Amino acid sequence: MKVGVVGASGYVGGETLRLLVNHPDVEIAAVTSRQHVGEYLHRVQPSLRGFTDLTFSELDYDRLSDSCDLVFTAVPHGTATDIVRALYDRDIKVIDLSADYRLHDPADYTKWYGWEHPHPDYLSKSVFGIPELHREEIRSAKLVSCPGCMAVTSILALAPPVREGLVDTEHIVVDSKIGSSGAGAGAGTAHAMRAGVIRPYKPAKHRHTGEIEQELSGIAGKKIRVSMSPHAVDVVRGILCTNHVFLTREASEKDLWKMYRQAYGEERFVRLIRDKKGLYKFPDPKFLVGSNFCDIGFDLDEDNNRLVAISASDNLMKGAAGSAIQNMNIMAGLDEMSGLRYTPLTPV
Amino acid sequence: MKVGVVGASGYVGGETLRLLVNHPDVEIAAVTSRQHVGEYLHRVQPSLRGFTDLTFSELDYDRLSDSCDLVFTAVPHGTATDIVRALYDRDIKVIDLSADYRLHDPADYTKWYGWEHPHPDYLSKSVFGIPELHREEIRSAKLVSCPGCMAVTSILALAPPVREGLVDTEHIVVDSKIGSSGAGAGAGTAHAMRAGVIRPYKPAKHRHTGEIEQELSGIAGKKIRVSMSPHAVDVVRGILCTNHVFLTREASEKDLWKMYRQAYGEERFVRLIRDKKGLYKFPDPKFLVGSNFCDIGFDLDEDNNRLVAISASDNLMKGAAGSAIQNMNIMAGLDEMSGLRYTPLTPV
Amino acid sequence: MKVGVVGASGYVGGETLRLLVNHPDVEIAAVTSRQHVGEYLHRVQPSLRGFTDLTFSELDYDRLSDSCDLVFTAVPHGTATDIVRALYDRDIKVIDLSADYRLHDPADYTKWYGWEHPHPDYLSKSVFGIPELHREEIRSAKLVSCPGCMAVTSILALAPPVREGLVDTEHIVVDSKIGSSGAGAGAGTAHAMRAGVIRPYKPAKHRHTGEIEQELSGIAGKKIRVSMSPHAVDVVRGILCTNHVFLTREASEKDLWKMYRQAYGEERFVRLIRDKKGLYKFPDPKFLVGSNFCDIGFDLDEDNNRLVAISASDNLMKGAAGSAIQNMNIMAGLDEMSGLRYTPLTPV
Amino acid sequence: MKVGVVGASGYVGGETLRLLVNHPDVEIAAVTSRQHVGEYLHRVQPSLRGFTDLTFSELDYDRLSDSCDLVFTAVPHGTATDIVRALYDRDIKVIDLSADYRLHDPADYTKWYGWEHPHPDYLSKSVFGIPELHREEIRSAKLVSCPGCMAVTSILALAPPVREGLVDTEHIVVDSKIGSSGAGAGAGTAHAMRAGVIRPYKPAKHRHTGEIEQELSGIAGKKIRVSMSPHAVDVVRGILCTNHVFLTREASEKDLWKMYRQAYGEERFVRLIRDKKGLYKFPDPKFLVGSNFCDIGFDLDEDNNRLVAISASDNLMKGAAGSAIQNMNIMAGLDEMSGLRYTPLTPV
Repeated sequence: MKVGVVGASGYVGGETLRLLVNHPDVEIAAVTSRQHVGEYLHRVQPSLRGFTDLTFSELDYDRLSDSCDLVFTAVPHGTATDIVRALYDRDIKVIDLSADYRLHDPADYTKWYGWEHPHPDYLSKSVFGIPELHREEIRSAKLVSCPGCMAVTSILALAPPVREGLVDTEHIVVDSKIGSSGAGAGAGTAHAMRAGVIRPYKPAKHRHTGEIEQELSGIAGKKIRVSMSPHAVDVVRGILCTNHVFLTREASEKDLWKMYRQAYGEERFVRLIRDKKGLYKFPDPKFLVGSNFCDIGFDLDEDNNRLVAISASDNLMKGAAGSAIQNMNIMAGLDEMSGLRYTPLTPV
Repeated sequence: MKVGVVGASGYVGGETLRLLVNHPDVEIAAVTSRQHVGEYLHRVQPSLRGFTDLTFSELDYDRLSDSCDLVFTAVPHGTATDIVRALYDRDIKVIDLSADYRLHDPADYTKWYGWEHPHPDYLSKSVFGIPELHREEIRSAKLVSCPGCMAVTSILALAPPVREGLVDTEHIVVDSKIGSSGAGAGAGTAHAMRAGVIRPYKPAKHRHTGEIEQELSGIAGKKIRVSMSPHAVDVVRGILCTNHVFLTREASEKDLWKMYRQAYGEERFVRLIRDKKGLYKFPDPKFLVGSNFCDIGFDLDEDNNRLVAISASDNLMKGAAGSAIQNMNIMAGLDEMSGLRYTPLTPV
Repeated sequence: MKVGVVGASGYVGGETLRLLVNHPDVEIAAVTSRQHVGEYLHRVQPSLRGFTDLTFSELDYDRLSDSCDLVFTAVPHGTATDIVRALYDRDIKVIDLSADYRLHDPADYTKWYGWEHPHPDYLSKSVFGIPELHREEIRSAKLVSCPGCMAVTSILALAPPVREGLVDTEHIVVDSKIGSSGAGAGAGTAHAMRAGVIRPYKPAKHRHTGEIEQELSGIAGKKIRVSMSPHAVDVVRGILCTNHVFLTREASEKDLWKMYRQAYGEERFVRLIRDKKGLYKFPDPKFLVGSNFCDIGFDLDEDNNRLVAISASDNLMKGAAGSAIQNMNIMAGLDEMSGLRYTPLTPV
Repeated sequence: MKVGVVGASGYVGGETLRLLVNHPDVEIAAVTSRQHVGEYLHRVQPSLRGFTDLTFSELDYDRLSDSCDLVFTAVPHGTATDIVRALYDRDIKVIDLSADYRLHDPADYTKWYGWEHPHPDYLSKSVFGIPELHREEIRSAKLVSCPGCMAVTSILALAPPVREGLVDTEHIVVDSKIGSSGAGAGAGTAHAMRAGVIRPYKPAKHRHTGEIEQELSGIAGKKIRVSMSPHAVDVVRGILCTNHVFLTREASEKDLWKMYRQAYGEERFVRLIRDKKGLYKFPDPKFLVGSNFCDIGFDLDEDNNRLVAISASDNLMKGAAGSAIQNMNIMAGLDEMSGLRYTPLTPV
């Protein structure tokens, strides 16, 4: 299969390419970047040195259309709206890594992003790219929108208990912690001011809330609100979501394990974690670096009838590029693990 | 004033000594450590090199009684019970930095620590050492027990809205993040396995929950339960507590600021933080390293009627040694800021 | 090919297994660990969860001999001497990851390690496992000893100019910086005391000096001494060696590039790095994490007639497990890159 | 004494103010910053919140002249030339923290900085601000130029053996490692690309070389060249200089200790470090954070007749603001330790 990557100079674009250069079923036909036209890819993405001789080209829809079966768009939020539509209209399959086609309701763009979506009729064409929830739709989709990194990590932990009606939907608290690569290649704080932080940002009204509410509401069959608060911590890659929910009825640890096993027992990229000893009793993104897993575990706080559902991922992998490749594999009828058989790096 | 430090080889003991060697009103009369008798203090606490020629001595109650007006005990939890009683009985003022005299109800030791307190009748003699809540009692106390580092940081953020009856006390979620120095000098994970973690530990039933419940229940005048979950993150010093509470009635940002200002406007070691721009919009322990402040801020999530009360501290300072010195100053009738006029180090 | 790993519970053993579980030409027949007999591998090496159902077995030479074509020994220095000999005598190919068979001269064990080698006659049977220097010997070797992580990184940078007679061999200064995973799983300093260090250790007489001197002396055809000083820095994986040498004759940048290209132009795991802009002007282990490359670059200090030859690697990969697999591929007649086509993770 | 700070928005300016707000003998009369005129100081320097109500003013020489006895200039290199001269001409004492008045020979600005110094006749008016070498000149100076952070750290370690004629001056290798705060507030690399680096920068011809050569040449009484190579490592504050020198004659460890004790035994801000056990056997900037010490130690490599002289400092303290205050104290006839009695923070 021939693929292209539009916006290949950022972290997410770079990670997508890292996976593509070693993907056994894929040939990279084109990479574009406005700023770097003509430059060797490895000048901007040094980890690719020795793996590809590609150079950046301009964004040319006709050329992409001629040379690619599928295109990944990894451009900043707000700039993908037109690009994705143009590709879609040329009958190229698109996997979008921005937020621009994640929300189905145009009103949500006004609410969470503060701008009107210019192509609201295309929102319904887009499938929300979590295979564990929407695999069949993804299989036949022309446009898949990969979820936000914190959103997918939370949603996977919360979907099973919400589906079971176990969750008091008035008091869902999602407390997220994320590394610096989540900020994007052009947007990071300088090391001296970012090292050692435990910094709250957007404790209320963070944009990923919209995606989480959309998906959980779909599962619950009713409008659900989520109280989400993200924090920047001192790591480059990694997300931990601590999802605090209060239970509507009693449930034992055994019941909860059974529920999670039923939900994800067959899933290749969700692992259920709980150990009685060692350093990996609960999910921790340290043990996921470079892999496409979302690890899920939980603790039960009987004193408060609280389920602490804990989920972790590598924000550039399951949180972005890894999900994108997983979606591509499904759309192309490939083995879902193809090009994604990476163990985590430990220690790192 | 002459003071002693029992258990001066750990991080908390070392930090207490760091403050004492430069305290204008104090002379250090004795430091003890079982393992290091006879050694120079600076061999174990290298930061003190050049500031003191003291050597470690054995724990000798009579000698302490003769030479000290006040003793700090900084020994591991469970080992302070006898030491504190022995000092108390010799009429020495004691500031205990362990957990052994924090909880007033002996049953709480069984619940949270799993052992029976050997001297339950002494628990009522101990004042819980948060000056912002118990200053008058501390002033005349013979025994003050310094609060747990995460406990004090949460309690200070939650006390005002609980006092006002603003908090839905069925759904208090305290999500804490803490650095590696919180583990103590003898207990830390090796760097390769600790660097870059976002590791949940004790997501339910963490011991500091007991202290938070005790104090908030006292303020509310009724038994309150708290859902606390701590996480280890990659920093050495620092705590952030994200205290998610649902409001019982509507409150504006302005109302909430007023409430916090009334509670802490006169306090020297609580700072109210909120900025519209820059990197320090909300509390972040990065901007507190080495200082005795607890910084408090909040965000209001009107969609969910949720108050996100955020508090930060240096766990070895306001979370331990700094609070101890603050308590000492009050007990001794000194200026409360004496020996504690440290700005945070920034950047660090 | 069927392989075994003796000592599979440490970082190096874990990294070897990480590579083996995804190696297309290999089946893992046995893993041993004294402490963990009967346990699932992924309990000790959490990154392998989902990749293998192997359990640890006891070290049983006959069973290894029956089931394995080749065995990796990844046990602590000093404990491999007997194990390697026993395997060798049973006609199993061995790749040793300890220091016990690196030095050819028995006297060097007395000098650098302080103990007498119990099997000095086996030292000559061992090939020093740097394919870029000893590929032909490795191809037919029964026993290959993988070099020390700092040693291989320095040797690769220094070999070309030493071979050319360009180096003033009286004043070779090797200043190395290394991450915490180099200390091994059982030996690390706690995070609070290791984070943020720039800590010299063994500024003189570090053990890896012996290996560097052995290899460079072999190249130079005369006894060469090296002044090596390693430092611990705050990273988990990674080595940078700054090799300062003074030139015996004038050489231009162009000459030096030509020399390095001739030495390594055909090598798959050595990359020559120099860029005029960007963050990757010189080698930096940050851009090598998880890969088997040794990156080499240099700067020329004409004022002092000094060549600063700079080399970087991932200490667990090219510095240990990656080299081991590369050696295995050569010994087994496989493609040298088989199972090693990993791009670095960036950013991480 | 009344002082002003010109350029108070950066890291060095902020650290200078951190020390000044708690200095017992000083009143801060003015702080200037072009970008922040009218803003509260603590908005830009959050660690000062609660310690000062000062606002930034414009740079007005007359106002500074009226209100200040002494001014610190902490502006970027190249922009201090005119400011310092203007203040000097108004008879205000100046302590300059830029590089603009460090080098005495105008030709050195062309060589190391690539620009012509506009006021070459003022260079001879400036005293190089290392009290341990130039205390008497500083006492009566009107203009003191604080040394570069890596320069002062190296010079203090090398001065004694150079003075004794022990050093082979043809092969002095200074390998430096420095944290991210050295880059300045406006110049840092984003965290995701800076975390975990061991990055060489300017392996040859780094600017601080000029200062080191100037000072060591002055001590040796002949022109000395230095081979300096700095590296960025993952820490915010801290410098380690590994100074590798070859000895011109035999010297025992005892001789070398004696030499260092004679040089620095009376110095308050130089500590000689060597321990046989523990984590602080050699200097390490981790154990200096927030303090004004330069710690010096060494190891002797008899095999190569090499002295490894190791020195460490906090680059914002002894490497910048701490030195500035120390110089101020001397110029003003105050106790040299006044306002500088800070122990290091440990652990941090």
